[in-house]
Amino acid sequence: MTSNPTSPVKIQTGNFFEDFVLGQVLQHATPRTIGEGEVALYIALTGARQVLHSSEPAAQSLGYKSRPIDDLLAFHIAFGKTVPDISVNAVANLGYADVQFLHPVYIGDTLRTSSNVIGLKQNSNGKSGVVYVRSVAVNQLLQPVLSWVRWVMVHKNDLDAPAPETVVPELPEFVPAKALPVPSFLNARKFDTTLTGGANFWEDYAVGERINHPAGITISDTDHTLATKLYQNNARLHFDDLMMKSSNFGRRLMYGGHVISICRALSHDGLENALTIAAINGGTHCNPTLGDDTIYTWTEVLDKWTFDNRLDLGALRLRMVGVKNQPADSLSSTYVENDGKKTYHPNVVLDLDYTVLIPRKPL
Amino acid sequence: MTSNPTSPVKIQTGNFFEDFVLGQVLQHATPRTIGEGEVALYIALTGARQVLHSSEPAAQSLGYKSRPIDDLLAFHIAFGKTVPDISVNAVANLGYADVQFLHPVYIGDTLRTSSNVIGLKQNSNGKSGVVYVRSVAVNQLLQPVLSWVRWVMVHKNDLDAPAPETVVPELPEFVPAKALPVPSFLNARKFDTTLTGGANFWEDYAVGERINHPAGITISDTDHTLATKLYQNNARLHFDDLMMKSSNFGRRLMYGGHVISICRALSHDGLENALTIAAINGGTHCNPTLGDDTIYTWTEVLDKWTFDNRLDLGALRLRMVGVKNQPADSLSSTYVENDGKKTYHPNVVLDLDYTVLIPRKPL
Amino acid sequence: MTSNPTSPVKIQTGNFFEDFVLGQVLQHATPRTIGEGEVALYIALTGARQVLHSSEPAAQSLGYKSRPIDDLLAFHIAFGKTVPDISVNAVANLGYADVQFLHPVYIGDTLRTSSNVIGLKQNSNGKSGVVYVRSVAVNQLLQPVLSWVRWVMVHKNDLDAPAPETVVPELPEFVPAKALPVPSFLNARKFDTTLTGGANFWEDYAVGERINHPAGITISDTDHTLATKLYQNNARLHFDDLMMKSSNFGRRLMYGGHVISICRALSHDGLENALTIAAINGGTHCNPTLGDDTIYTWTEVLDKWTFDNRLDLGALRLRMVGVKNQPADSLSSTYVENDGKKTYHPNVVLDLDYTVLIPRKPL
Repeated sequence: MTSNPTSPVKIQTGNFFEDFVLGQVLQHATPRTIGEGEVALYIALTGARQVLHSSEPAAQSLGYKSRPIDDLLAFHIAFGKTVPDISVNAVANLGYADVQFLHPVYIGDTLRTSSNVIGLKQNSNGKSGVVYVRSVAVNQLLQPVLSWVRWVMVHKNDLDAPAPETVVPELPEFVPAKALPVPSFLNARKFDTTLTGGANFWEDYAVGERINHPAGITISDTDHTLATKLYQNNARLHFDDLMMKSSNFGRRLMYGGHVISICRALSHDGLENALTIAAINGGTHCNPTLGDDTIYTWTEVLDKWTFDNRLDLGALRLRMVGVKNQPADSLSSTYVENDGKKTYHPNVVLDLDYTVLIPRKPL
Repeated sequence: MTSNPTSPVKIQTGNFFEDFVLGQVLQHATPRTIGEGEVALYIALTGARQVLHSSEPAAQSLGYKSRPIDDLLAFHIAFGKTVPDISVNAVANLGYADVQFLHPVYIGDTLRTSSNVIGLKQNSNGKSGVVYVRSVAVNQLLQPVLSWVRWVMVHKNDLDAPAPETVVPELPEFVPAKALPVPSFLNARKFDTTLTGGANFWEDYAVGERINHPAGITISDTDHTLATKLYQNNARLHFDDLMMKSSNFGRRLMYGGHVISICRALSHDGLENALTIAAINGGTHCNPTLGDDTIYTWTEVLDKWTFDNRLDLGALRLRMVGVKNQPADSLSSTYVENDGKKTYHPNVVLDLDYTVLIPRKPL
Repeated sequence: MTSNPTSPVKIQTGNFFEDFVLGQVLQHATPRTIGEGEVALYIALTGARQVLHSSEPAAQSLGYKSRPIDDLLAFHIAFGKTVPDISVNAVANLGYADVQFLHPVYIGDTLRTSSNVIGLKQNSNGKSGVVYVRSVAVNQLLQPVLSWVRWVMVHKNDLDAPAPETVVPELPEFVPAKALPVPSFLNARKFDTTLTGGANFWEDYAVGERINHPAGITISDTDHTLATKLYQNNARLHFDDLMMKSSNFGRRLMYGGHVISICRALSHDGLENALTIAAINGGTHCNPTLGDDTIYTWTEVLDKWTFDNRLDLGALRLRMVGVKNQPADSLSSTYVENDGKKTYHPNVVLDLDYTVLIPRKPL
């Protein structure tokens, strides 16, 4: 093996805990133009039937200039950009919050993502720490389209590096109604329910209601690695099976974001008119999802809001629970108790808190 | 599990036999814009090499305004729209007839489908009945692009519901030459056979001739579920493996329409110049196709027609037989006899009667 | 089985050795328009993150009129066209040389390929021979976009056919710097490394240096058959599993070109700024790649060149070695010795010699 002491190291090892500095801004690589191909592949990979990304005339009838790509497809691509700089040395992805879908991403748009270090907290063991970043994706006109906070536990490489001052940002439990991005151009006043096949408006959903979506989708290793590569997420644990053979899982792990997409697609039956995602308030990937798992989902209505001066639209804050290998209606609770300790049921793979916009009943 | 008596039921159970009314029109949900992504995915899923959807200049040289999408891709997407309203409670898909490809579907077009109940016949057991519908898909200019009849056996939910008057529509055995949609803009007079690599014109095919297409394609569960989801066909038996584990098949069934597509793609070797499908006259999915089956196909020429005032094009009525797990030339007949009873050979998966347009030999 | 003696044979058997004539030009079938769908699928199938095909604004900032498709995607589609005429009766694909990427292929372009027989050499056994062809792919404006030589060993069908005069073309060991196609419009003077995330310029690579790219990608049979069908490569050994069951491999073989694509995608880590492939000098598919293999790769810098009057760009001649089922850094040499005979290590699947263009360090 030839080594060459005069040439610089070529393989980047990513950032370790001591490399992050409060206030630092990281420009992530590989801007991505999202075309008609990504939209079709996303439908093939998830079975998504949401009307806005399915139909150009339907999108235009609601005020969009053209067909927007699915909110979660945009999120996964924007998120994937951050992996090489933020989470490649992560011990764990601890959480995310305040995910706001600020502007539609249209077919043909190009996304870039940057991240700002907004918090740091070294662990008491001195071997790792928690990094909080706010990431923003912009389109080719530099309009912000997505903004989110996530926090990850990252290894230290140099254990002697001094601990930074502890700064933990305050994060909202959920994006409040007043802060939700509601597109001014979106006009659902004459919403045509034959577009979606769903009869239910904002008024028809009750806080506390639970909807067991009936269908399941079986996802193979090929399915989810195609998705991961489509999103240009280069976290090896999703596509390098040989490396993963020596992990606790013994095989590739499904990218958690793709599980969200599968659940969102399945939730179409019962939430047909949930047009667009305004925010993700938080979420937990409770258990791993692996190839050949069949995913089911249920939704619980957590809250519902209207907006001043908007009679056409309301918001539903929803809890979307993903379950593997048993139908949604066969599981009454997400939790089990062992010796008085409450943990997620081993088949619960996702517990997501998010907010959608949905037309209100015509007067 | 929270139930909420004041909010309406969210999960649609679809139509049962007693819900269908003669003359009723059903507007199906989820209009779909078909872009470049669908075209590329269709090629990747089927290996289709038909020239019209492969090449923009070739399509234009034949009179098309731009590259049309493959006839069967349009059919599967248009057909998929009808599933939630027509066949979700079906015991069996009994047949289809009079499928006419009325107008090209171009990249960028948006399809919507509606269905008209044209026949009803309750079964003597009182537990189910046969529903006949004519479905029409239109593009965004409301031009009809596809029209077909199918009939399905559907469960009754309310066994006490009265039987409707029996009406069984008369259906043509095949679409006659005079009724075939032959595009007026299509001009095959100077057809360039180097586009397709096929030397054979309409004159070169003889009624009764059989063509054993040599290649086979192995289709995995991932392949066919990607196709089903691409077509937004939400019949669970194609993608919910857990549900299917307790079925007679023990696993997911391949969507029969995708089998047609695979056979059509394989039939390119020997039918290179069969430019476009004008009609599907009828067909039977004789046996189930499952993941990892290898599909082969043969074609038999059933009839051939010319058109008044069209010296450039003729029609071939073809029988396309799909065979699983043995080459086409290894099977002489589609039938076997057991105790004097003639049934399909267990490896025959498709018996389709359809009509193509093909250039005539230049004078 | 009906046979019809009056109708011509429909299934083409391809060319045998005695069918090729020196100087003959073959026009290959199925021109192909390459759209946004192909680009997205290529990313999903390979995980490629090269910036030029990922981002429209990045491509434009470098002087391209719009986003070009990946060099290798263009190559595979152009190459696939030649299979029915050149290699369908091949005993072996012996090699390729002088592959030049002459002009970008843009989204929306249509490629056609033709081949010129430039050499013939019958084998001493009289049963087969070697055919040398130069193939050229042109776009819809008839601009040559790709040119390459390959040679294949092809069966004779008629063993009594006389041997042609032996002509073996002289082929360059590699495309010399002076002959490399360097686009005049490409301007890398103000190259922005945040586009790629890579800090290394032409000056940073040393001849003899070896880069072990860290990640591996596991490729299933579904993955590689999707790729083969996307490329419209109709060589059955890649997708007809039943036929391959009786071969030495016992199953489908991965198309060797797709292995090149996987390795090129993996080599992004460490070669982030290698913008485009100018030439492939030669290559060997040393061992078969099969479904579920995990591919790794390393790169060795063979040579480096600058161009007169181009301060913005240089060329690196690289050796890219593909390895299956063990990380690149776990293998020091591509060869093993058995009884004094040097052969490729059984896990080495690719040994490719190619040349890339890469920005030079700003002054």
